[in-house]
Amino acid sequence: MSEAISPLATPFPAIPAIAGVTLRVARAGYKDWGRCDLTYAELAQGTAVAGVFTRNVCCSSEVELGRQNVAQGSARALVVNAGNSNAFTGYRGREAVEQIMVQVADHLGCAKEEVFVSSTGVIGVPLPKDKARAGVEAALKADPCDWQMAAQTIGTTDTFAKGACVSVQLGASRCTLGAIIKGSGMIAPDMATMLGYIFTDAAVSPEFLQECLSAANRRTFSCITVDSDTSTSDTVLAFATGKAGNDVLTGFDSPGADAFTAALEDICRQLAHLVVRDGEGAQKFIAVSVSGAVSDESARKVGLSIANSPLVKTAIAGEDANWGRVVMAVGKAGEPADRDRLSIGFGGTWAALNGQPVPDYDEAPVTKHLKGQDISIEVDLGMGQGMATVWTCDLTHGYISINADYRS
Amino acid sequence: MSEAISPLATPFPAIPAIAGVTLRVARAGYKDWGRCDLTYAELAQGTAVAGVFTRNVCCSSEVELGRQNVAQGSARALVVNAGNSNAFTGYRGREAVEQIMVQVADHLGCAKEEVFVSSTGVIGVPLPKDKARAGVEAALKADPCDWQMAAQTIGTTDTFAKGACVSVQLGASRCTLGAIIKGSGMIAPDMATMLGYIFTDAAVSPEFLQECLSAANRRTFSCITVDSDTSTSDTVLAFATGKAGNDVLTGFDSPGADAFTAALEDICRQLAHLVVRDGEGAQKFIAVSVSGAVSDESARKVGLSIANSPLVKTAIAGEDANWGRVVMAVGKAGEPADRDRLSIGFGGTWAALNGQPVPDYDEAPVTKHLKGQDISIEVDLGMGQGMATVWTCDLTHGYISINADYRS
Repeated sequence: MSEAISPLATPFPAIPAIAGVTLRVARAGYKDWGRCDLTYAELAQGTAVAGVFTRNVCCSSEVELGRQNVAQGSARALVVNAGNSNAFTGYRGREAVEQIMVQVADHLGCAKEEVFVSSTGVIGVPLPKDKARAGVEAALKADPCDWQMAAQTIGTTDTFAKGACVSVQLGASRCTLGAIIKGSGMIAPDMATMLGYIFTDAAVSPEFLQECLSAANRRTFSCITVDSDTSTSDTVLAFATGKAGNDVLTGFDSPGADAFTAALEDICRQLAHLVVRDGEGAQKFIAVSVSGAVSDESARKVGLSIANSPLVKTAIAGEDANWGRVVMAVGKAGEPADRDRLSIGFGGTWAALNGQPVPDYDEAPVTKHLKGQDISIEVDLGMGQGMATVWTCDLTHGYISINADYRS
Repeated sequence: MSEAISPLATPFPAIPAIAGVTLRVARAGYKDWGRCDLTYAELAQGTAVAGVFTRNVCCSSEVELGRQNVAQGSARALVVNAGNSNAFTGYRGREAVEQIMVQVADHLGCAKEEVFVSSTGVIGVPLPKDKARAGVEAALKADPCDWQMAAQTIGTTDTFAKGACVSVQLGASRCTLGAIIKGSGMIAPDMATMLGYIFTDAAVSPEFLQECLSAANRRTFSCITVDSDTSTSDTVLAFATGKAGNDVLTGFDSPGADAFTAALEDICRQLAHLVVRDGEGAQKFIAVSVSGAVSDESARKVGLSIANSPLVKTAIAGEDANWGRVVMAVGKAGEPADRDRLSIGFGGTWAALNGQPVPDYDEAPVTKHLKGQDISIEVDLGMGQGMATVWTCDLTHGYISINADYRS
C-alpha cells in the first residue's frame, strides 16, 4: 500500500464470512518489504468458477493457464502473488505458476486445474520458485484472515484496500457476494494491474456463472479506464461455493436468476468504481453518460474515447467546462455521429445543443459542479437509442509524478 | 507565440522566394493580442492544389469546404485565421468562411472554390464576419512578407515558428518546395491544431499532386502523435504553381516524378517532426521503429499504440528503460504479435529478445541514451516484413500545466 491515500478513497465495507471460503495470507518476500504478499483462498469442494481476462496478446502465463482452466468449471483454491507479475518471463515464468498449482493441488487432493494463480508487480522477472514454494507452504499453515487483510495483501501501488459486498434472496436462501479487487493505474504492467475476485455462497452452475460474469463485465470493468493502457495480467474470477442451499442456478429461467445477475453486476460495478477511485493521481471521479448512439456498444466506444482523451481529462482536472474537447473526442471515436445533432452537458446542464453552443448558457451551475469530486459529463448523439456509461478519473500532475518521477 | 520556447526547438530555415507565391499578413484582431493573426498567400493562375484533412467527424466548415474544393484541382489563394477555429459553430461559421472565399475571389477574379480557408483557435465561437472582412481587406493591401513572418502568424500556442525547404532537379529545372506548419498539442481543438502548407514552383497535375501528398501523409503526418487527440481542423495543403518550367508531372512515369515524390515526403517528414518538437510539454523527441510486423500498416498501428501510451511516454520522461511498458503497449494494439517472438530495444541496445529479458543485458548504454533529447525505441515483432517509424514526445508535468492549470 502506498503512503498517500487517494482523496477519492472509501472505507472498507463490512463483509461477512462466506460459507466455503477460507482466506489466508503469508510473506513470500517477492520484494524487500515488510508486509504479506501472498494471498490464499481455499474453496469448498463443488465450487463453480468463471473468469474474464485481459485481451492483451502479451499476457502472462497466469492469464493463459487461468483462461484454459476456467473451462473445466470447478475451483478449489486461489493464490495471488503481489510484487512480481511474472509477465514476459517465458517458460521459466510458466514453470513457477505450474509449481504453485501442483503444490496446492497435492495439499488439497484436487486436480491442479482447480488451482488458480494470479501475479501482479514488476514484469520481466520470473517469479522465484523458492520464494513461491515457501510462501505457499506458510499460507497453507496460517490462521484464517478477514477480507480486509486479503484485500490489502493483493494490493501493490493501491492507496487503499478495496472490497464490496451484496446480498440477495434466492428462494428461501439468503446468499452473499463478497469481493476484493486491486488496481490503480488502470493498468501499469510493472506496478499495477486490475485483479478482482468475487466469492459467493450461492449455488450456480459454472456455465451460467460465466454467462453472468461476462455480461456484467461488459457493463462494468469494460467501462472503466484510468489511462487507456491495458495490463498484461488483468483478471476477474468469480467463485460460487454453493453452500447457501439455494436451488442451483443454471440459466435465466432458474428462479432467482434475475436477482443473482443483478447482484453480480452490482458488485462488479462497485469494484470497478473502486479501481477508478484509486486511479493514479486521481482527484475527481468522472462518469461519462452517452445516449442517442446507434447501439449500446457504439455508445460505450464514444464514452471511452471521451474518457481516454488526455485533453478532456486535463480539462476536468482544471475544473474547466471545456466542451469543445468533448466534441473533439466524440468526433475522433470513429463511431456514427453527426456534428449538427450533438449535445453536451456537465452535471445536468447543457452547454451545447444540436451542434451549437446554447445561446443563453449559464456557466455558473457547471462551474459549481466541476469544483466537486464527482463529475458527470452527458453526451447525446441524436442518432438512435444506444446508451452506455463509462467511468474514469482526471489526469493530474500526480499521474506524471507517479509514472515519470522515479527510476525503476 | 507562447513565451517559453520548447527545448526541442530548431532555428527557422532559409527559404527562398517561390515563383507564383506571394505571402502577406494582417491583424484581424480575432483575439485581444498585439500581433498579426491573418495570413494570406496569393497563388499564380494555374496553381494545382492537393490536400489531406482531419478524419474527425465533428470537423469545421473550413475542413468540409476545403475537402470539397480540392476536388476541382486549382487554387488562387489561401487564408489562415489564428485565434478562432470556427469549429462547432453551425451555419454561422460556414457563412463566415464563404464570405472570405467570395471576398478574395472577387478581388482576384477567380472562382470562390479556388480560395482555401483554415482557422485555428478557440472552438464554439463563430468567426466574426466583420473582423474577417477587415482583416482580409488589410491583407490584400499589405506589403509581401517572408516565410518566417507567415509561419509566426499561423501559430497559436506554438512556441517557435516552423518551416522547411527542399529543392529538387526536374529535368533542366531546379524546383523548390517551401513549407510552413503550426501545431503543438498534436491537437488541442480549442488551442492548437495542425495546419501545414507546402508551396512549390514545380509543375504538377492536381491528380498526381494529390496522389503524392496522400502517400507522403501516410508515412509522415499520420505517423506522429503528441497526445492521441485528433483535431477538428487538421489540414495540410500542397500548392504547385508550375513556374519552374519543368514538364508537368502527371504520374509516376513522368521524368523526375520519383525525385519530386521523395522531396515532397522529405518536406512532409521535416514538418511532422517540427510539430512533435513543439509538443505540449515535450522534453524529448521519440522515434519508435517497428519491424517484423505482418504489414507496414500493422507496424504503424503498433508504433502508434506505443507512442500514445501514457505509461511509455511518462517512462521516457523519467529516463526509465521500462521495456515492460512497451510490451504492454504492443499487446494492447490489437495487431498480430507473439509474446515469445517479441524483441525490444532502446537506442540500439536490445533489452529483451524473443520474449525474454536479455540475460547479460547491460543497462549502461541505454541509461546514457535515455538521458539525451533524441530517443529511439526499437521493436521487432518477428512476424513478417512490415515496418514503420512513428514519432512522438514524452509526457511531462508541462503537458498537465498547459492543459489543466488554467481556466478557459
